[in-house]
Amino acid sequence: MATPKPTAILLFCCPDQRGIVAALSTFITRHNGNIIALDQYVDAEEGVFFARMEWELEGFSLPLGQFAEHFDAVARPFQANWRLHRSDQRLRMAVMVSKQAHCLYDILARHESGEWPVEIALVLSNHEDHRGLVERHGLPFHCIPVTPQSKAAAEAAQIDLLRKANVDIVVLARYMQILGPAFVQAFPMRIINIHHSFLPAFAGANPYRAAHDRGVKIIGATAHFVTEKLDEGPIIEQDVIRVSHRQGVDDLVRLGRDLEKIVLSRAIYGQLHHRLLVYKNRTVVFS
Amino acid sequence: MATPKPTAILLFCCPDQRGIVAALSTFITRHNGNIIALDQYVDAEEGVFFARMEWELEGFSLPLGQFAEHFDAVARPFQANWRLHRSDQRLRMAVMVSKQAHCLYDILARHESGEWPVEIALVLSNHEDHRGLVERHGLPFHCIPVTPQSKAAAEAAQIDLLRKANVDIVVLARYMQILGPAFVQAFPMRIINIHHSFLPAFAGANPYRAAHDRGVKIIGATAHFVTEKLDEGPIIEQDVIRVSHRQGVDDLVRLGRDLEKIVLSRAIYGQLHHRLLVYKNRTVVFS
Amino acid sequence: MATPKPTAILLFCCPDQRGIVAALSTFITRHNGNIIALDQYVDAEEGVFFARMEWELEGFSLPLGQFAEHFDAVARPFQANWRLHRSDQRLRMAVMVSKQAHCLYDILARHESGEWPVEIALVLSNHEDHRGLVERHGLPFHCIPVTPQSKAAAEAAQIDLLRKANVDIVVLARYMQILGPAFVQAFPMRIINIHHSFLPAFAGANPYRAAHDRGVKIIGATAHFVTEKLDEGPIIEQDVIRVSHRQGVDDLVRLGRDLEKIVLSRAIYGQLHHRLLVYKNRTVVFS
Amino acid sequence: MATPKPTAILLFCCPDQRGIVAALSTFITRHNGNIIALDQYVDAEEGVFFARMEWELEGFSLPLGQFAEHFDAVARPFQANWRLHRSDQRLRMAVMVSKQAHCLYDILARHESGEWPVEIALVLSNHEDHRGLVERHGLPFHCIPVTPQSKAAAEAAQIDLLRKANVDIVVLARYMQILGPAFVQAFPMRIINIHHSFLPAFAGANPYRAAHDRGVKIIGATAHFVTEKLDEGPIIEQDVIRVSHRQGVDDLVRLGRDLEKIVLSRAIYGQLHHRLLVYKNRTVVFS
Repeated sequence: MATPKPTAILLFCCPDQRGIVAALSTFITRHNGNIIALDQYVDAEEGVFFARMEWELEGFSLPLGQFAEHFDAVARPFQANWRLHRSDQRLRMAVMVSKQAHCLYDILARHESGEWPVEIALVLSNHEDHRGLVERHGLPFHCIPVTPQSKAAAEAAQIDLLRKANVDIVVLARYMQILGPAFVQAFPMRIINIHHSFLPAFAGANPYRAAHDRGVKIIGATAHFVTEKLDEGPIIEQDVIRVSHRQGVDDLVRLGRDLEKIVLSRAIYGQLHHRLLVYKNRTVVFS
Repeated sequence: MATPKPTAILLFCCPDQRGIVAALSTFITRHNGNIIALDQYVDAEEGVFFARMEWELEGFSLPLGQFAEHFDAVARPFQANWRLHRSDQRLRMAVMVSKQAHCLYDILARHESGEWPVEIALVLSNHEDHRGLVERHGLPFHCIPVTPQSKAAAEAAQIDLLRKANVDIVVLARYMQILGPAFVQAFPMRIINIHHSFLPAFAGANPYRAAHDRGVKIIGATAHFVTEKLDEGPIIEQDVIRVSHRQGVDDLVRLGRDLEKIVLSRAIYGQLHHRLLVYKNRTVVFS
Repeated sequence: MATPKPTAILLFCCPDQRGIVAALSTFITRHNGNIIALDQYVDAEEGVFFARMEWELEGFSLPLGQFAEHFDAVARPFQANWRLHRSDQRLRMAVMVSKQAHCLYDILARHESGEWPVEIALVLSNHEDHRGLVERHGLPFHCIPVTPQSKAAAEAAQIDLLRKANVDIVVLARYMQILGPAFVQAFPMRIINIHHSFLPAFAGANPYRAAHDRGVKIIGATAHFVTEKLDEGPIIEQDVIRVSHRQGVDDLVRLGRDLEKIVLSRAIYGQLHHRLLVYKNRTVVFS
Repeated sequence: MATPKPTAILLFCCPDQRGIVAALSTFITRHNGNIIALDQYVDAEEGVFFARMEWELEGFSLPLGQFAEHFDAVARPFQANWRLHRSDQRLRMAVMVSKQAHCLYDILARHESGEWPVEIALVLSNHEDHRGLVERHGLPFHCIPVTPQSKAAAEAAQIDLLRKANVDIVVLARYMQILGPAFVQAFPMRIINIHHSFLPAFAGANPYRAAHDRGVKIIGATAHFVTEKLDEGPIIEQDVIRVSHRQGVDDLVRLGRDLEKIVLSRAIYGQLHHRLLVYKNRTVVFS
């Protein structure tokens, strides 16, 4: 695979009205931009317009440093929220993990084989168990134990560490602690969690046990942005697998591990490629 | 397809212990029965043994009328619950429906084309809408309107009608009324409902609206036995379909209709072939 | 559900180049059209641009009768192929069927319950079996038997019948005859077939038997446009279901029937809503 | 999770006839064995009986060293093929890999985290690329380059190496060389390959390119035993993922990688737990 050409990516959201696509695409075309992807969507019920537009930087006549200044005249009349990304600027990611390592292994493998445009800034855990694994990969590992008593101080230390590491995205790769409001507010819509159930079914602890006891015939995993309400943040991706009465809780745990790592990786992929846009607790996932 | 040879089907459940399979299979073999299917399963956590055994009636030397008498000596030491069915005895089914007809259409088509070994004894509705459809199929249609005031009397009339029709199974094919305890108790583990969500997510009314508002990426349908707790009975079958932010509530309703009718039909198939055994709010579905 | 407002739908395809979306959306906006859906896609490998644009007729200042004349100035420089549809013009559909009726039942139910914006002009069969079913629905049924000897004459009669009925779309709902080139050419990219396998696996006759003998763990169904090469036309939709060694050929047939009817109905839905655009034996399915 | 108690596992296959289950279960029960799993299946078409029986070693009064001698009297009258395994005897596995490492990473992670009862005896490649990765895990890595000229000698060296390592199972984890007959015959029904398509569709080279060009709406991966006919061996496991016209070949490759590793891991799991039994190019997968 040849390295893809660098692109600019615009995420755009405004009240729906006539002429938005014409205005956006005319602006890019006028500056000689070659649009290689445009995905737009109107939530008719809410009356909101969403778009993701990607164009090649090569040949684009407007330096990105001056983009905001010029684009503002287009966006302001639409009362738009927007943000701009460059495909050649890799996001910095922190991975938080507890004792279960299957998601961590998967993330490290994708990182090492160059599958993702990402810098892993650090791995942070409340246990020492995976220090060897992480350091073997040449990545910084930090352990901050969390007890009921130390929780507030631990979170402050975590936030401090993540801020100093300048991370764009925090991935909870089966991190088994509930994050407090201060942590969540420090990284709004930048924390992605994998929950081991098909949310909103079986929120909270021990979802495989709960799924087994309820006798469901399908189990799932859910990747979502973390908000202050536990397991209620905007869903990014879900997937499921069929089970039967034959599977005990241990089997669900085993089958679920594969779901969890794949679903989490798809959510991370979306975030790293600037394909996710949250609106009213729902996630628009641009294709 | 040639008509399959008539068989006997034994459903059997007891505390797990040594020698059950040996005892069961020896009993059938001793009476010259040719076992064509044996599916057994042990719930190790609960310590319970479950089996479904099917053998050809042809050549079986024990008249089924004397089965209980002889088999009791085998079953009693195991403290077993069991029941016996004949494949050539078609179950009698009632279908209850309100205004939405997609499940009803599907059931009538399967019935008419001979897909199922079933007699449809009657279709019962709280509206007149589908009288024409049902009578065109040559089946009895009864309309018993239900209002908050008339509910108790209506249920009494329904129970009376179903009992007189001697039905073995009651299918709620998008019947939009909640059944009272008297009704549920009149047909224990014989009422199958289709709920238009992936239970336990979105129990109750308007699940597609709720799924849309929660922003799930997969929707589902659930067939379950009806118990006195709404949408909490033993799950028989579930299936799902992937959706995206692009689908509005109307789209979910449209996509869900196909899920509902297929999932319901699989549950009915299981019941008609004596493949379902309920234990502790979970359904063992024998293959 | 309220009747949706009538819309115009433009399907558009041209060599990829700068400024297409800007030109298209500016044209509609200039004539005061309110775009409610825009789905576009660039096949980067082939260098081809595809779009589907839908806007409300209410308020659109350009009478559709004059659309081509004005739009031509936009489309010509791009060397575009395009076609325009109105959502309030129902397509006319013919259904062809042999002895198996599950797809036919499903289509008739959707038609009768008003799920689709379609006129069923006629049902055409090589057997008399389903005359009663079709006529009961108040639809014309024609039987044209086909033997090796009569095949050419039969096809000529079929074509004649379909042309006189002025059909826009021909659905092969498990029609078990291979169509000759004359028939296929008479309705280019307007004939939709359901094949009972996951194409390209198991093309041709007896796919369930072939799937069973190969020991696959998943079976499928495929809806595709019919071309002169058997089972090789552009695929519109596919779906699958998991099976195991336990399922015999009869079970695959039974499970497959449900796949077939659902997959076929999704393909028909796409065509009726003008969401399908064929390019180089692949089908773009606009969302 | 507590270590499960050691068990004996019997795989059994014979012409179908009366009394097999009774004989098998009576034999185990007579020797005081506690059967914890019994899965049996009759291929009615072929007239063949298959079973997998698992019982606890604790309390079983017959030393396994004398099992064959005593069991022979039971099995011989049925003309059965059977083999016996112990759950506490870990299989020895070789992994063969070329340049793509996603399956290798996944296998190493499962091995390291103790998910599987397996010894990885060695990793064998035709390239040096992954020596570091493998040796970092403390496992032997051997590189035997393969050219058209050296192929015969290379295979002889590979066979020698694998025999000396005393391996029970050879996993082709995206090993991109076709194995010659001598290799295949050296490890009959012990070589598991992952093919990156939904077989039998797209056998051979470049299946993602072929799938893209055919315009399929679903792609898959297939794990199968390797026989002398390329990509035609008995299928163990398959899974699929939905794609659309939007996905280019690179996207299919990316999405397919996750399918491949999961499907391969399920097949390995089946083999390690003695759940696979091949008959007439089909694989019975016991649950």
